[in-house]
Amino acid sequence: MTDHVYKKIDLVGTSKESLEAAIQGAIGKASESVRNIDWFEVKEIRGWVKDGQVQHFQVALQAGFRLDD
Amino acid sequence: MTDHVYKKIDLVGTSKESLEAAIQGAIGKASESVRNIDWFEVKEIRGWVKDGQVQHFQVALQAGFRLDD
Amino acid sequence: MTDHVYKKIDLVGTSKESLEAAIQGAIGKASESVRNIDWFEVKEIRGWVKDGQVQHFQVALQAGFRLDD
Amino acid sequence: MTDHVYKKIDLVGTSKESLEAAIQGAIGKASESVRNIDWFEVKEIRGWVKDGQVQHFQVALQAGFRLDD
Amino acid sequence: MTDHVYKKIDLVGTSKESLEAAIQGAIGKASESVRNIDWFEVKEIRGWVKDGQVQHFQVALQAGFRLDD
Amino acid sequence: MTDHVYKKIDLVGTSKESLEAAIQGAIGKASESVRNIDWFEVKEIRGWVKDGQVQHFQVALQAGFRLDD
Amino acid sequence: MTDHVYKKIDLVGTSKESLEAAIQGAIGKASESVRNIDWFEVKEIRGWVKDGQVQHFQVALQAGFRLDD
Amino acid sequence: MTDHVYKKIDLVGTSKESLEAAIQGAIGKASESVRNIDWFEVKEIRGWVKDGQVQHFQVALQAGFRLDD
Amino acid sequence: MTDHVYKKIDLVGTSKESLEAAIQGAIGKASESVRNIDWFEVKEIRGWVKDGQVQHFQVALQAGFRLDD
Amino acid sequence: MTDHVYKKIDLVGTSKESLEAAIQGAIGKASESVRNIDWFEVKEIRGWVKDGQVQHFQVALQAGFRLDD
Amino acid sequence: MTDHVYKKIDLVGTSKESLEAAIQGAIGKASESVRNIDWFEVKEIRGWVKDGQVQHFQVALQAGFRLDD
Amino acid sequence: MTDHVYKKIDLVGTSKESLEAAIQGAIGKASESVRNIDWFEVKEIRGWVKDGQVQHFQVALQAGFRLDD
Repeated sequence: MTDHVYKKIDLVGTSKESLEAAIQGAIGKASESVRNIDWFEVKEIRGWVKDGQVQHFQVALQAGFRLDD
Repeated sequence: MTDHVYKKIDLVGTSKESLEAAIQGAIGKASESVRNIDWFEVKEIRGWVKDGQVQHFQVALQAGFRLDD
Repeated sequence: MTDHVYKKIDLVGTSKESLEAAIQGAIGKASESVRNIDWFEVKEIRGWVKDGQVQHFQVALQAGFRLDD
Repeated sequence: MTDHVYKKIDLVGTSKESLEAAIQGAIGKASESVRNIDWFEVKEIRGWVKDGQVQHFQVALQAGFRLDD
Repeated sequence: MTDHVYKKIDLVGTSKESLEAAIQGAIGKASESVRNIDWFEVKEIRGWVKDGQVQHFQVALQAGFRLDD
Repeated sequence: MTDHVYKKIDLVGTSKESLEAAIQGAIGKASESVRNIDWFEVKEIRGWVKDGQVQHFQVALQAGFRLDD
Repeated sequence: MTDHVYKKIDLVGTSKESLEAAIQGAIGKASESVRNIDWFEVKEIRGWVKDGQVQHFQVALQAGFRLDD
Repeated sequence: MTDHVYKKIDLVGTSKESLEAAIQGAIGKASESVRNIDWFEVKEIRGWVKDGQVQHFQVALQAGFRLDD
Repeated sequence: MTDHVYKKIDLVGTSKESLEAAIQGAIGKASESVRNIDWFEVKEIRGWVKDGQVQHFQVALQAGFRLDD
Repeated sequence: MTDHVYKKIDLVGTSKESLEAAIQGAIGKASESVRNIDWFEVKEIRGWVKDGQVQHFQVALQAGFRLDD
Repeated sequence: MTDHVYKKIDLVGTSKESLEAAIQGAIGKASESVRNIDWFEVKEIRGWVKDGQVQHFQVALQAGFRLDD
Repeated sequence: MTDHVYKKIDLVGTSKESLEAAIQGAIGKASESVRNIDWFEVKEIRGWVKDGQVQHFQVALQAGFRLDD
């Protein structure tokens, strides 16, 4: 097993429905331009509210992927 | 755009079902007495357990709203 | 009400579905060998990704229970 | 068991005698205007000094109470 | 010197000009309804941007004041 | 002096009287089943309140002990 | 309102004059290559000193922008 | 009121009796060589244990004092 | 791929030589009684000194392993 | 390039005017007795208030300088 | 000395041998595509274990470099 | 065993070779003027880079020693 190097990028996913959908949204969008995302780490959970209703959950996360050899 | 001042209050929402419901419960309840909650920030996630089953998810959060001019 | 002493153990639950299921999985599994888990505190949320899809949500938590008298 | 919502307020208690008295002072004072404080969480311990003697212990804490239904 | 109890409230001040103005804005606004604010503690500095220009500095802070005896 | 390995366990002690008693309670109870606890590190101080009176101080701590050779 | 995904990048702005100028410098420079920076979050404030005079304020921040749809 | 500059030093007080005595011990000892200590901030609480009994409470703190003009 | 549950234990490894040896020492010792340690996370690095020479590096870490099915 | 050792001291600068002046005040004062301060790191921003007006900004920082060879 | 702007990227280096090699591996790999990396800041140390032996040290770090003028 | 008071000083050691050498360098240098350093706590690990090669590891630490009786 050789030594690898990984990069982490900071994303914020949003979803009207759930924290999981906000996470998947960020991962899915980033995967359009970054190959091989392997893991994520949630850094912060926030959200927007209107008229006493949560409008969007926002999940800030770091997504990690291996740098190509 | 004029300068505004916002206030943040600390709430703990609880739900038997989900983290999202705990958040919405706290925001909804606070909205009965505070106008114009704009956003929230999750500070802590905890919960109560009985007989090996999660009984309540507890989400501590800060809710922010604009002070009336 | 007498003074009690509690112990906390560190667990990581995983779930393909949701954060709540990951938490319940960890609590349920630990309850097979530890009696009387009372509460939990989420410490970290991470996950594994493949082909742009979240494969597993991972929730690191501490579960607390009373030490038998 | 229904879902409840709690509020947390930030207080700083002070005491010439002890950390416990500073905590109780803050809880007691707040209880004059807030019903049903259930728990507290210490956030910071500081104090004032004069002539090499601690004059006041200061304990910053959050006190939590259930919002009336 | 008797023991006092203080309360802290969370505010967010904003200013197009400076961090100091954002802080003073929050303190000034809160002083309209809260007597005797004594000190503040900065918790977070953020801001909004448009067209590559900072539009508003946002300073989240806690303001402390003595509860009336 | 040879190299040793230590283990740390998470405990929560409670006391109606004082923070020190809560700490000693946790250490004493754990010492019934764990030999050679050497040190502790306080992680969190909380408590329960009823009718404006602190009922129990809760001190979460880690206790460290040497693993037998 | 559809779900959006945002990216955050880490920058360090420097200025001989002020914290605000260091922030604006970082935002302005990044805006040359990144469209639509929406907000920033200050992470750290440092600086360089020579002969007892601050030479440069350094503000480390995260700048957030929406990923193009 | 002119602008002052303060210095903070890191101390660890120890006491067989109480957290308060550990704090006072550190402040008192430091006051032998540093004039005008004004305040302290607790950073960490630890302790040593032997035979299931707390031997010494250790309180790490920062003590602040004004630099002479 | 089924959902797994992991447990984390807190260890402190020590070594006269290096941080890596302190880590390996803790992992090796724990592996005598815990099967299948998969990963570790360093929490703190400390050490003991005598006569101006580091005597022991101490690395506090959490070691994670899968709970048997 | 030989290996150097640096020392960091904790200061609190205050200013009626600005955060920058509070920082420069601390650095300037410390430079009267410490040679070669090279950099600083802001740790905390606080302030005193009277009649709804900020009286003093307080910036706690660490200043680093090389120990003479 | 003019004002510069720096960018920081998040990397994870891995090494079978040492923490230093994991850091150098990340820096070296990133330098293939990023010019002028000036400094790094370690954020987290983790590792993978198999059969009671550390297989890889993982060092998460931020690497900073000046944006070209 | 009487109560002792300890002082902690903040140092930054640097080394072209290793983290351990950076730590020992700081401890050794400080021991020239401070008697009886007993322990250290690592606070931060950073480093300087040139041409894709780590030039110096920098370890910020606190060194503790007993104040003379």
